[in-house]
Amino acid sequence: MYENLYNNLIVIGGNVAGLAAASQARRINPELDITVLESGKYISYGTCALPYYISGYIKKIDDLFAYPKDFFEQKRNIKILTSHRVVGIDSAKKELLVNVAGTSENRIISYDRLIISSGGSTIVPDIPGINSSNVFHFRNIEDAEKLKGYIDKNNPKKAVVIGGGQIGMLMAEAFNMIRIKTSLIEMKKRIFGGFEYEISTILSRKAEMENIIVLTDTAVSSINSSSVTIESVEGKRDIDCDLALLATGISANTGFLLDTSIELGKNNAIKVNNKLQTSYINIYACGDCATVKNIVTGKQDYIPTANNGVKTGRIAGENAAGGNKTFAGSVGTVVDKVLDLEVAKTGIGSNEAISMGYEAIKLIDSYASHAGSVPGAKKIAIIIIVDTRTRKLLGAQMIGGEGVGKRIDVFATAITSEMTVDDIYMLDLSYAPAVSTVWDPVNKICGKAVLALDSSKN
Amino acid sequence: MYENLYNNLIVIGGNVAGLAAASQARRINPELDITVLESGKYISYGTCALPYYISGYIKKIDDLFAYPKDFFEQKRNIKILTSHRVVGIDSAKKELLVNVAGTSENRIISYDRLIISSGGSTIVPDIPGINSSNVFHFRNIEDAEKLKGYIDKNNPKKAVVIGGGQIGMLMAEAFNMIRIKTSLIEMKKRIFGGFEYEISTILSRKAEMENIIVLTDTAVSSINSSSVTIESVEGKRDIDCDLALLATGISANTGFLLDTSIELGKNNAIKVNNKLQTSYINIYACGDCATVKNIVTGKQDYIPTANNGVKTGRIAGENAAGGNKTFAGSVGTVVDKVLDLEVAKTGIGSNEAISMGYEAIKLIDSYASHAGSVPGAKKIAIIIIVDTRTRKLLGAQMIGGEGVGKRIDVFATAITSEMTVDDIYMLDLSYAPAVSTVWDPVNKICGKAVLALDSSKN
Repeated sequence: MYENLYNNLIVIGGNVAGLAAASQARRINPELDITVLESGKYISYGTCALPYYISGYIKKIDDLFAYPKDFFEQKRNIKILTSHRVVGIDSAKKELLVNVAGTSENRIISYDRLIISSGGSTIVPDIPGINSSNVFHFRNIEDAEKLKGYIDKNNPKKAVVIGGGQIGMLMAEAFNMIRIKTSLIEMKKRIFGGFEYEISTILSRKAEMENIIVLTDTAVSSINSSSVTIESVEGKRDIDCDLALLATGISANTGFLLDTSIELGKNNAIKVNNKLQTSYINIYACGDCATVKNIVTGKQDYIPTANNGVKTGRIAGENAAGGNKTFAGSVGTVVDKVLDLEVAKTGIGSNEAISMGYEAIKLIDSYASHAGSVPGAKKIAIIIIVDTRTRKLLGAQMIGGEGVGKRIDVFATAITSEMTVDDIYMLDLSYAPAVSTVWDPVNKICGKAVLALDSSKN
Repeated sequence: MYENLYNNLIVIGGNVAGLAAASQARRINPELDITVLESGKYISYGTCALPYYISGYIKKIDDLFAYPKDFFEQKRNIKILTSHRVVGIDSAKKELLVNVAGTSENRIISYDRLIISSGGSTIVPDIPGINSSNVFHFRNIEDAEKLKGYIDKNNPKKAVVIGGGQIGMLMAEAFNMIRIKTSLIEMKKRIFGGFEYEISTILSRKAEMENIIVLTDTAVSSINSSSVTIESVEGKRDIDCDLALLATGISANTGFLLDTSIELGKNNAIKVNNKLQTSYINIYACGDCATVKNIVTGKQDYIPTANNGVKTGRIAGENAAGGNKTFAGSVGTVVDKVLDLEVAKTGIGSNEAISMGYEAIKLIDSYASHAGSVPGAKKIAIIIIVDTRTRKLLGAQMIGGEGVGKRIDVFATAITSEMTVDDIYMLDLSYAPAVSTVWDPVNKICGKAVLALDSSKN
């Protein structure tokens, strides 16, 4: 079977980035024939809220969907083909080889322009037993449905989460909320390895207070149907569990590109230029399958966040449809709400700053989220990383019970516009006793940096 | 009586700006003789939280104090003289004429360097009966004590608040919370005149839903012990009330400077340069008694916020003690939490933009404070003012149930660093379903501006 669609745009991937791309292409070009190929059954859902579905905080899976298929087909004249998995690409012929779920023969679909937004998948480590039926992945809605089905049917009492990053911790919290006793296993010396160690420590302690067992410096050697064998300096031992969940990081879904000359970078992500073009002029990439420019380091980086997904999607869509927009890049802003804490960061960490050759200092302090006179203030710990030569802020991280997420955005904005700590110290930030302190914590930590920099000059 | 203190710094005013100034002077110069003269009985308290004391949300007046007198005297070696009101100044002799409460003879106190942080007072309009014993001011802790004493003793049932600005609305809410039926009288066409009219409208409706009577375009013609006479296009009528509260704006406390050549500007505020120096090289001014540079307009402006108070205080203190810091200015950021809403603004409004000659456009839209999948999202209305020639953001205003205060700070940071709406549209702002939407509302409204600017080009 062979279909030839002239003057068409094919978008691979029907979630955040892909749909942002298809929608923007439509806005720019009302004539273009636009088709979205989605490998799964569903499109347009909130991946980040999936743990809430497991914990029951979100009751209906329907609440996770942003827009129905009809919306795109009828309102935006975008064709949506679900259960269509792209398995190969012939860039010379401009053809995709597409497997339709439940069929054995592959379809060939032609494209004039192509946007790849095939997303990412859980990295599957090479561990004996990793493919057991009680080992779950957790990346898309099918994963969530499968896990939820297993929980509802089998009523598991104990779980092991493999990987102490953001998804691992969110899932440990979700299990904990439905009374599944959870052990979180992390190979490195600490959980939340993308953050400074002080943040990891605060979060580890909080997890343990909530009765989540946190085991760091611990590898998983094998998995079977009723236990996970772990290995640390204390030796090997088994942890009984009814299920294991893999949260071992994300890798770009780019296997189908291996026979092309499309260049892959960090985590197998597609390398793109600032127009979000690949090495082929008519192929764009965006979202979790592509690299993004890190504004602080200037280098292509892998930062698979939804916030980057929509932005790169919109620009890739605009450019593929004939526009000419430039993506300035990402400062790597992330926030998670977990265990009644908000944890957030932006910019680069202290180790990255050192490895890039910065003479950086790191400051840490904790502050009240709002004026002490008004009941309910929470503690916020803030860390900043500052370049001592230019006095510019390189990174900021925060953890606390209130007012973390949108405060990290002030730092993200300041880093994007290359502000010095002197500038941020004097920023005119809002104050009301129920909202902040007279000097906002953002001002305060930068004032501390100014003092440190000034006194080291003397 | 004559005292001569050589090599000394006198600070007039013992609240936010004055104590920030004295403390910073001490940090910079351990040798300096520093004395703070405070006209009232108390120092170092949170003026902005006073309405919470009236409503009973803050139970003990002690909770309003940030630091006790001892802290400054013992830890920072700063002399504090309360009940010392400066009534005159001889700049040639470098002498202050000081009235000590309860005494008839004035003291003369010499200074080498002087920081004026005498604050502001409620503007008292010329209305018959304005000095009646049931008419209250509301600026400092003595005002709050007097009002609270009156309420506790007389159990008033009806109040009239004169002035529909931020303090007026906060006090109407406080009265409402303790079941005092309140009418809010505003001379102009709408309340919250410093904000865009859409914000005023939302707030007016909310106030009326909470059973606060809002009367705009209405003047007060006279006051007596049991009623306030008002006048509008509908004619004159009396509103019965047990008390009236003046919230008719703030004017700088600078009467004692009238015989000097210190120049006064808007609202009688002391004009200062960017070192916070007055026209006398040894006299500085900061806080609510001084002008600040408006970063957007480039002009000296009157923006009496606590956030400006601490910053100008700290810089005035540093410079008076021998430092040489520059105050970059204020973007006029304010936030209030009132009637379960946060209301905030930064930068300039649309009328100000037009009167300055900008070809400005104004955009308004409303958004969810976080992802719809997670329960509890609130609506936020956002307005932005954009210069069509440079595409720079000139101002932003927000009102909503959640996540307004620290989001206005993103706009404040963006305005300070002269970002365009294109820049802000693509800012890498934090996302988690419980904290934000994938495109943060800040991105969204700027995306709308980009679209409007781009389509007007075509």
